Amino acid sequence: MTEESALLRVLRGEALAKPPVWLMRQAGRYLPEYRELRARASSFLDFCYNPQLASEATLQPIRRFGFDAAIVFSDILVVPDALGVRVSFEDGGGPRLEPVDSEVRLRDLRNEIDLSRLSPVFETISIVRRVLPHRIALIGFCGAPWTVASYMAAGRGSPDQMPARLLAYRQPSLFQELIERLIEASITYLSAQLEAGVDAVQIFDTWAGVLAPREFQRWCFEPLRKIISGVRQTWPRAPIIVFCRGAGCQLPELARSSGADAIGLDTTIDPSFAAANVQTLKPVQGNLDPAALVAGGAALASAMENILATLGRGPLIFNLGHGILPETPVAHVEQLIRHLRAS
Amino acid sequence: MTEESALLRVLRGEALAKPPVWLMRQAGRYLPEYRELRARASSFLDFCYNPQLASEATLQPIRRFGFDAAIVFSDILVVPDALGVRVSFEDGGGPRLEPVDSEVRLRDLRNEIDLSRLSPVFETISIVRRVLPHRIALIGFCGAPWTVASYMAAGRGSPDQMPARLLAYRQPSLFQELIERLIEASITYLSAQLEAGVDAVQIFDTWAGVLAPREFQRWCFEPLRKIISGVRQTWPRAPIIVFCRGAGCQLPELARSSGADAIGLDTTIDPSFAAANVQTLKPVQGNLDPAALVAGGAALASAMENILATLGRGPLIFNLGHGILPETPVAHVEQLIRHLRAS
Repeated sequence: MTEESALLRVLRGEALAKPPVWLMRQAGRYLPEYRELRARASSFLDFCYNPQLASEATLQPIRRFGFDAAIVFSDILVVPDALGVRVSFEDGGGPRLEPVDSEVRLRDLRNEIDLSRLSPVFETISIVRRVLPHRIALIGFCGAPWTVASYMAAGRGSPDQMPARLLAYRQPSLFQELIERLIEASITYLSAQLEAGVDAVQIFDTWAGVLAPREFQRWCFEPLRKIISGVRQTWPRAPIIVFCRGAGCQLPELARSSGADAIGLDTTIDPSFAAANVQTLKPVQGNLDPAALVAGGAALASAMENILATLGRGPLIFNLGHGILPETPVAHVEQLIRHLRAS
Repeated sequence: MTEESALLRVLRGEALAKPPVWLMRQAGRYLPEYRELRARASSFLDFCYNPQLASEATLQPIRRFGFDAAIVFSDILVVPDALGVRVSFEDGGGPRLEPVDSEVRLRDLRNEIDLSRLSPVFETISIVRRVLPHRIALIGFCGAPWTVASYMAAGRGSPDQMPARLLAYRQPSLFQELIERLIEASITYLSAQLEAGVDAVQIFDTWAGVLAPREFQRWCFEPLRKIISGVRQTWPRAPIIVFCRGAGCQLPELARSSGADAIGLDTTIDPSFAAANVQTLKPVQGNLDPAALVAGGAALASAMENILATLGRGPLIFNLGHGILPETPVAHVEQLIRHLRAS
């Protein structure tokens, strides 16, 4: 009999005495072995699309720290790439895309996501799932439509996602069409990741927090709801985590009616608020300040205790409230793991 | 008999049929006459410290649009400047300061803010107050300690204010001392602005939204409360507006116990939430999306209607949810004013 994954038990609503843990961007530049591996591919996208390298990157943090979940090493911008947008990553300068900011550019997109372009991701998944013990869950992911569209509209990362916000105000039907394409692409892509062997999926809406409330409803909440319902058509029991960064007071509504199995809590969410208004509805995941993990020591211990004391008795997946920072000392991640195993 | 300022009436709790309006950063680069004026001083700080230029910049948007309030043209970083930190502004590159990130640097600060260094600001205030009709309020301001400290710790603007967050975790007593100095300096500076003739003051905590909740309490909420209470020692009836950007669900608590007379609402705050949980306690100010003002037309009209329909029956100061963007067309500000006057 295989031991069941602690992460999946929590996603089904169980509260465990010791919460399972993984860290957003746990495979990344803070790990010396990752930096060594990364040097073997010329471009970041080549790295993501190389199943040998991407599967190794996925497994590195599991070997080093024994996390309860691995997350497929990839990037949210593989979706626009598979929709026919030329995507590249400048060293240290972030992503560059052909902007999709007009009817003409929108018509240039493929009608459907090209899954053959993403076959290296599915191969990565099957390699990792083969070597990963069953007690460790494998998480697939995609970016939420708003967040992906914010890069597509700007052609790059942008402060406050202003190009996408302006496009959405100025040409709402064009923007709606872009979002609909991304909804369909995300449903197809997440379903294909489940088919390839991931145990759960997470949708990242990293830039949800800049929107005015009606725009949040239209460009974040509704698309998330549609993706979840779309994935459930083929995968009715697939566990789905939504991380909607900056959703603040809207999180209870997200827990209530998005259809997600678990709700990611960003760093700003008060654990007491989440305990009273979110965890009563759905399991939660988060929300350690990545800066506390960089600081380590007493600051880290105190921040962890605050989360564990408030959310630890309900269904909780311990995680950061945002991605791990490249300057994070490996020793502080070890401190985090020791703290959790001892708690 | 002088006609009393609509803004001050709202700050005392009155709901007006037509809400008074001003815009954060209303004196700025979106105005051609500002760009012309700005070219007359070599550095931005020289511009702020020149009462003739600063008073003219303060008055320009009043002349053009007839706003209900003028805000003293200055910058939040004049406070570190008057504490002995060398501050400069690179053209287009943002502020540069000598970082205050160690005991040694902290000891180098003046114990008290040098008000003589800020005398041009007070002269600006008296020039403006002299020419401004009484029905138009003059607002003074300062940055909140957390926001100012985030520049002081980093020596510049920084994504996610990480240097200050790390300093606060690593050396909390050092950081507390820095915050205390800024609290004292802010009390002295706001009181001196009131003495010089401003009718109300606003405290800007622009970067409050990145903090974890306990850090928000310690570095934002408590300092704001102390500044308000300190100003009230000498100016018991001075109207004080707090704009704590990104405070989200914490706004009702801010309204309840910070002592502020009015609460600024950033762009992300749902007007319905604010109507039920904030405006019932205190007058509110905000929260039009600056991107909707750049877009203009139907998007602007709809965003304005949403605010007016929800918050317009209570005490409301119409404003943006963040500073006006440099690319905002003047014609869209005219559209905003027409809409409000007609409503």
